[in-house]
Amino acid sequence: MTKTKKYLLKESEIPSQWYNIVAEMPNKPLPLLHPGTKQALKPEDLYPIFAEEVARQELNQTDTWIDIPEEVLDKYRIYRPSPLVRAYGLEKALDTPAHLYFKNESVSPVGSHKLNSALAQAYYCKKEGLTNITTETGAGQWGTALSFAAKMFDLELAVYMVKVSYEQKPYRRSLMQTWGAQVVASPSMSTKAGRKILTDHPTYRGSLGTAISEAIELAMETPNCKYTLGSVLNHVSLHQTVIGLEAEKQMEMAGEYPDIVIGCFGGGSNFSGISYPFLRHNFKEGRKVRFIAAEPASCPKLTRGVFQYDFGDEAGYTPLLPMFTLGHNFSPAHIHAGGLRYHGAGTIVSQLLKDRLIEAVDIRQLDSFEAGVLFARTEGIVPAPESAHAIAAAIAEAQKAKEEGTAKVILFNLSGHGLVDMSAYDQYLAGDLNNYALTDEEIAGNISQLEKII
Amino acid sequence: MTKTKKYLLKESEIPSQWYNIVAEMPNKPLPLLHPGTKQALKPEDLYPIFAEEVARQELNQTDTWIDIPEEVLDKYRIYRPSPLVRAYGLEKALDTPAHLYFKNESVSPVGSHKLNSALAQAYYCKKEGLTNITTETGAGQWGTALSFAAKMFDLELAVYMVKVSYEQKPYRRSLMQTWGAQVVASPSMSTKAGRKILTDHPTYRGSLGTAISEAIELAMETPNCKYTLGSVLNHVSLHQTVIGLEAEKQMEMAGEYPDIVIGCFGGGSNFSGISYPFLRHNFKEGRKVRFIAAEPASCPKLTRGVFQYDFGDEAGYTPLLPMFTLGHNFSPAHIHAGGLRYHGAGTIVSQLLKDRLIEAVDIRQLDSFEAGVLFARTEGIVPAPESAHAIAAAIAEAQKAKEEGTAKVILFNLSGHGLVDMSAYDQYLAGDLNNYALTDEEIAGNISQLEKII
Repeated sequence: MTKTKKYLLKESEIPSQWYNIVAEMPNKPLPLLHPGTKQALKPEDLYPIFAEEVARQELNQTDTWIDIPEEVLDKYRIYRPSPLVRAYGLEKALDTPAHLYFKNESVSPVGSHKLNSALAQAYYCKKEGLTNITTETGAGQWGTALSFAAKMFDLELAVYMVKVSYEQKPYRRSLMQTWGAQVVASPSMSTKAGRKILTDHPTYRGSLGTAISEAIELAMETPNCKYTLGSVLNHVSLHQTVIGLEAEKQMEMAGEYPDIVIGCFGGGSNFSGISYPFLRHNFKEGRKVRFIAAEPASCPKLTRGVFQYDFGDEAGYTPLLPMFTLGHNFSPAHIHAGGLRYHGAGTIVSQLLKDRLIEAVDIRQLDSFEAGVLFARTEGIVPAPESAHAIAAAIAEAQKAKEEGTAKVILFNLSGHGLVDMSAYDQYLAGDLNNYALTDEEIAGNISQLEKII
Repeated sequence: MTKTKKYLLKESEIPSQWYNIVAEMPNKPLPLLHPGTKQALKPEDLYPIFAEEVARQELNQTDTWIDIPEEVLDKYRIYRPSPLVRAYGLEKALDTPAHLYFKNESVSPVGSHKLNSALAQAYYCKKEGLTNITTETGAGQWGTALSFAAKMFDLELAVYMVKVSYEQKPYRRSLMQTWGAQVVASPSMSTKAGRKILTDHPTYRGSLGTAISEAIELAMETPNCKYTLGSVLNHVSLHQTVIGLEAEKQMEMAGEYPDIVIGCFGGGSNFSGISYPFLRHNFKEGRKVRFIAAEPASCPKLTRGVFQYDFGDEAGYTPLLPMFTLGHNFSPAHIHAGGLRYHGAGTIVSQLLKDRLIEAVDIRQLDSFEAGVLFARTEGIVPAPESAHAIAAAIAEAQKAKEEGTAKVILFNLSGHGLVDMSAYDQYLAGDLNNYALTDEEIAGNISQLEKII
């Protein structure tokens, strides 16, 4: 008989501080640059866009631990601590000697880890006296999470949702509206950035880069309103470290320590969250744990992009970020893992990868869905298409462990469930999904357009 | 600041026995009758349709406690124990002195309480050496749960899904298929019952009664195959008592005891599950707790039906059940709470209602969605349209408590989340939903067709 084993913490064991890895990195990330002056950014430069506390967190390179406000902890208690599960069913199906564990972030009411940062950002905006916030969303995970968080902290929220997702993922839109958010398909006529694209290309169906531009512009033009972002930036990774900090305690309950830690990778929020708390023991105690970011083969910035200063959005409103990128004009294929369709990566992750302290692999779309279906059938949870990339990478490592005959301990993050993405599974089961990977020419052509700053 | 408070049990506190209320009822339900002979059924009469252990549980009137097999408990541990939550946010929004608690069954990987019985039934079928099982599903909650359970116990499953749901709820269908089930729109050409309806009425879009007939017929015609049902019957209520047994311990942790216990009502599975363990203290210790079944105004068998022997399905394959019914040919309006669109009620619930040991209220569709949206915005979880009926009833009681100025303790069951039903919320927010209630003439016309047996 397959055993079921999950490791549960008490509420009192939810971490009371986030872990700020920047303070302990061997090489700190290069500074963010002001897009006009090309000078290193100061927190004040970010105040017009982000909540001030969030701006300070973004550039904080000295404090290793940052207190989680009691108001945020209180909302974390709606769904945290999340379970750590020994994936006995998956192990059995793979006939592997590896020990597989997953941290189950799908248990949040929005179905993903995104809430960990959404609650923090909404709280800081509220505390600062703001009444309105804006954001963008691609697949809808972040927009959903922020809608929930905005409602919890009584803020009005406007979400720019990439038009192709707005049309293809009506359930995500309905969820945001049920929580009271205003959802606008991007590009829209409500911003200069949107109007420019719509007048130049009336049938354009949007991108995350464009939606970011619109959300920033609306925040800048609206009194008592700031912008929030769900991935890429340092403060988002910071908030997500609750995942790994809990997992550390749970692995201890299981009496094991991971040899490999895996997260799927879009901009970096869930990979950072599961990895950084374990990575610090590599820094400080000389552990040799491997960390693997699993990105889609159709959007391979970590495995095949360049390390370069680039914009986070299409219109060039954001600071310049030192990162692995495919170019801010890169338009990823319409894979179903919408949360992984982003041209760049966080600056911390990029520096860690450059320093070979973490690794990256790329996963084909069909392999991710094959892994997702196997996981659903063995562990019972239908994973988000994004999370299925982490599962595919974990399966590959478990198969290697089998070849080597070693009982590797593999921990991966189940960043979310796929219940609101079932049309993707429908298409996969019907054999209607592509298996696209970028060609070298496509990558080179796109990157050659980047302005050289470093 | 609103506080968040959930009460969590340890895994070791998952109940190890189900509570069989029939053994302790003041008046036992009338017997099930064989549809041909009109004689009281014996377990053997049910063996051709149901797993033998399930058939014995169905007619067991003597054992108060029935052991949960270790194999079932092991699968319960995937998602149980489920949290009990103090709904401070909802209390605040209602400005009520009442204390509101909800048992959160939405945390199961299928999103509802249905898994509690699906796992038990699949296990007993497997243990008996069966290879295949069949069932029907309306909205898809039960079909989804049984697909999961069948995969966990390595059984092949065929699900007859009411055609209107098959077309309107593609995510539910995809979920079942992802877990490996075969899903057939009912009426289908694969059974005599289906063919008869399709040839008589080629455009008929199905009903739960017809789908039950098809699933039973397929099970009877297939070697090593039996049928399973997700509500109405005694053994289903039995399995669902894990909900209330856990909630009892959790209310004790909260230092309170409910004055009122509420569940939404379709066939009775979740209402029974939350209620019976508390109801036994009314029997044994003279407590005066009120129990309220919340049914839709468009399908009001408890509040406006008759107590009568009737079939559980349309074609008349099931035993005759002594129950409150609107008649087995009753075709409920297309409300979104598909799980509540059933003409009858369980025999235990019917007897309890007849003996005035429980109460029933009917809820209009718009009131249920208004309650659902308020719950989503205050407690963060988007409820299933079915569960929203329980919330609406709880809100009504909380408002009464406010008028009376009493700190009533109200416990309701959140039987599932609505993430796979967002199109319903979409229509509600757009103002496109009807608020239908049956007229007395419609009810009388339908009931007059019933054959009088008692």
